[in-house]
Amino acid sequence: MPNVVSMEAGYYRVPLEVTLSDSTHGDMLAFELNTVRLRDADGAEGVGYTFTVGRNGAAIDAILTRDIPEQMVGQDADRIELLWQRVWWGQHYGGRGGPTVLAQSALDMALWDLKARRLGQPLWKLLGGYDPRVPCYAGGIDLDFPLDKLLRQTDDNLRKGFRAIKMKVGRKRLAEDVERVRAMREHLGEGFPLMVDANMKWSADEAIRAARAFQPYAPAWLEEPVIPDDVAGQVRVVREGGLPIAAGENLRTLWEFKQLIAAGGVTYPEPDVTNCGGVTPFMKIAHLAEAYNLPVTSHGAHDVTVHLLAAAPNRSYLEAHGFGLDRYIAEPLRIEEGFAVAPDRPGHGIEFDWKALQAIRA
Amino acid sequence: MPNVVSMEAGYYRVPLEVTLSDSTHGDMLAFELNTVRLRDADGAEGVGYTFTVGRNGAAIDAILTRDIPEQMVGQDADRIELLWQRVWWGQHYGGRGGPTVLAQSALDMALWDLKARRLGQPLWKLLGGYDPRVPCYAGGIDLDFPLDKLLRQTDDNLRKGFRAIKMKVGRKRLAEDVERVRAMREHLGEGFPLMVDANMKWSADEAIRAARAFQPYAPAWLEEPVIPDDVAGQVRVVREGGLPIAAGENLRTLWEFKQLIAAGGVTYPEPDVTNCGGVTPFMKIAHLAEAYNLPVTSHGAHDVTVHLLAAAPNRSYLEAHGFGLDRYIAEPLRIEEGFAVAPDRPGHGIEFDWKALQAIRA
Ligand SMILES: [Mg+2]
Ligand SMILES: [Mg+2]
Repeated sequence: MPNVVSMEAGYYRVPLEVTLSDSTHGDMLAFELNTVRLRDADGAEGVGYTFTVGRNGAAIDAILTRDIPEQMVGQDADRIELLWQRVWWGQHYGGRGGPTVLAQSALDMALWDLKARRLGQPLWKLLGGYDPRVPCYAGGIDLDFPLDKLLRQTDDNLRKGFRAIKMKVGRKRLAEDVERVRAMREHLGEGFPLMVDANMKWSADEAIRAARAFQPYAPAWLEEPVIPDDVAGQVRVVREGGLPIAAGENLRTLWEFKQLIAAGGVTYPEPDVTNCGGVTPFMKIAHLAEAYNLPVTSHGAHDVTVHLLAAAPNRSYLEAHGFGLDRYIAEPLRIEEGFAVAPDRPGHGIEFDWKALQAIRA
Repeated sequence: MPNVVSMEAGYYRVPLEVTLSDSTHGDMLAFELNTVRLRDADGAEGVGYTFTVGRNGAAIDAILTRDIPEQMVGQDADRIELLWQRVWWGQHYGGRGGPTVLAQSALDMALWDLKARRLGQPLWKLLGGYDPRVPCYAGGIDLDFPLDKLLRQTDDNLRKGFRAIKMKVGRKRLAEDVERVRAMREHLGEGFPLMVDANMKWSADEAIRAARAFQPYAPAWLEEPVIPDDVAGQVRVVREGGLPIAAGENLRTLWEFKQLIAAGGVTYPEPDVTNCGGVTPFMKIAHLAEAYNLPVTSHGAHDVTVHLLAAAPNRSYLEAHGFGLDRYIAEPLRIEEGFAVAPDRPGHGIEFDWKALQAIRA
């Protein structure tokens, strides 16, 4: 019986090996990890997770511990669409975003993992089965790295098998950004896919100026030039900046993606399965992008997201960056000559080292 | 010195005297109340609060207890705009809505209360000082009341001094809604301001059909006909339904209001100071509405909101409904012949009965 008999939440503080920085979030010393473990009446298990860059994790834990279990226990775990609606609307007042949607994302991921494991299929096949090999890039969080460290990190990533790389922009002076992008382009050679990410740093006009200044170095895309709330501004950046635009890691619903996409404000929609509401909305966003003839990329949680992009014919690059979580996972994502490969284990195939996580409980 | 020396959060479960219901939230048995008490170096205090209809309160408490204090203690409490930005961006990843923005709303309210108390001014004067008498309506949460109970509640509200009344719509069959609206119109007489609230029940087409069916009974407005995410749909309801449209209790940012207003999707913007980010964004939303030549109304927290609408020249009706909180407040809002009167006490003038609240700690 696929009925949920237990739901267990975990809340951890994952230290980062290197202090990360971007134009908005400042220095990041540790990530928060929130996990969900569902068990059904047959003893099958499903696991989901979400994360933050350092705040709101206790709130996510409170929702997963105090609010959601009563909505889940006893329910038919196979009716994921029904459960998604119930939890969304049951949490709507005071929810509809923020920690609530991150909590629901982890829950939904666990439900899909449970279903795929019960059916003995890897998630990427269950969700559509397009191609397990997904082009992949290394997402650097390196705004404050001196140039030589940035280039060393780049060489490291090339050695690891990456054939596409993203760097941060949004330093105090645009000239500094331009110089760093120029140096990276020179280092990587013409045609090598190089993305740049501004993490919402600019106004629309500043973003247009920056995009034009980067044009000679042909970035594959410019990411999050403006705040996610400025739809009209981002439409202008797409039209006037002359670069493809990626955005979506700070959009929290299918509807926010619809607004941005329908307005013509994005080239590469970039949902994050750990904060867009889970696997269920992620796939709908991918399909919405397909309907608009747009490639879909991703943010975060590469080990799960590889399955989602492997299921989508319009998949573009998968973002890979581990934020220290790899140490707590049995078989981290494999990168082969620029491709990430969705594993053939049932479910999403991630096994957390629960004992090791115990030591970093928040 | 206005520097913050302490921040204390409270989390309570406020039982409702009567079970409430609307078309989306089902039966509501208790509201959650989250409070913030700030104290500065001179011993002055500021108090803020937010609430939910039953879930996410523990998450709000976690944010107010674990994430925000480190961002507040030691800061200059008078620089409210700076603190608002810091908290918004400090919480942005995993925030930008949901419990995080409710927590920030309570915090911002406490900062404004503190400032006004230090200056010895009632909030409505500090924020602009337009007119302390604000037209006010009784917001009924009565979708499942039988008709005779609805009419009795209405007579009660007339006796209490209300000269405008809102009722719920969104029952299973539109014909039932129409019959109830007709009966209320007959009961109240021509010209009496009667609002109807659908709590996001319908698709745009259903809402247009309902609006047209209500037209003969001339509601002052139709509230939340569709989900807050369906901006394009709501624009159609405004244009094709033939009724003024109120909406905003489920919008969480100045930018969401901007999108809806600029698109032409709302007649009466309706922010809630306890969930739109606080006093700071509420006033910006009111001013944005003024720039678009729209009246601003409100949702929730009438005892604080009366100050905000009393400061705004484009203020329309204040919504009054107590949800059981009045029992825990020293001097609840006064209603005189259809007007709510902003008190002349410094700050917002709400004094919680902290001892009585102690008994309902969540
Ligand atoms: Mg990014
Ligand atoms: Mg309403």
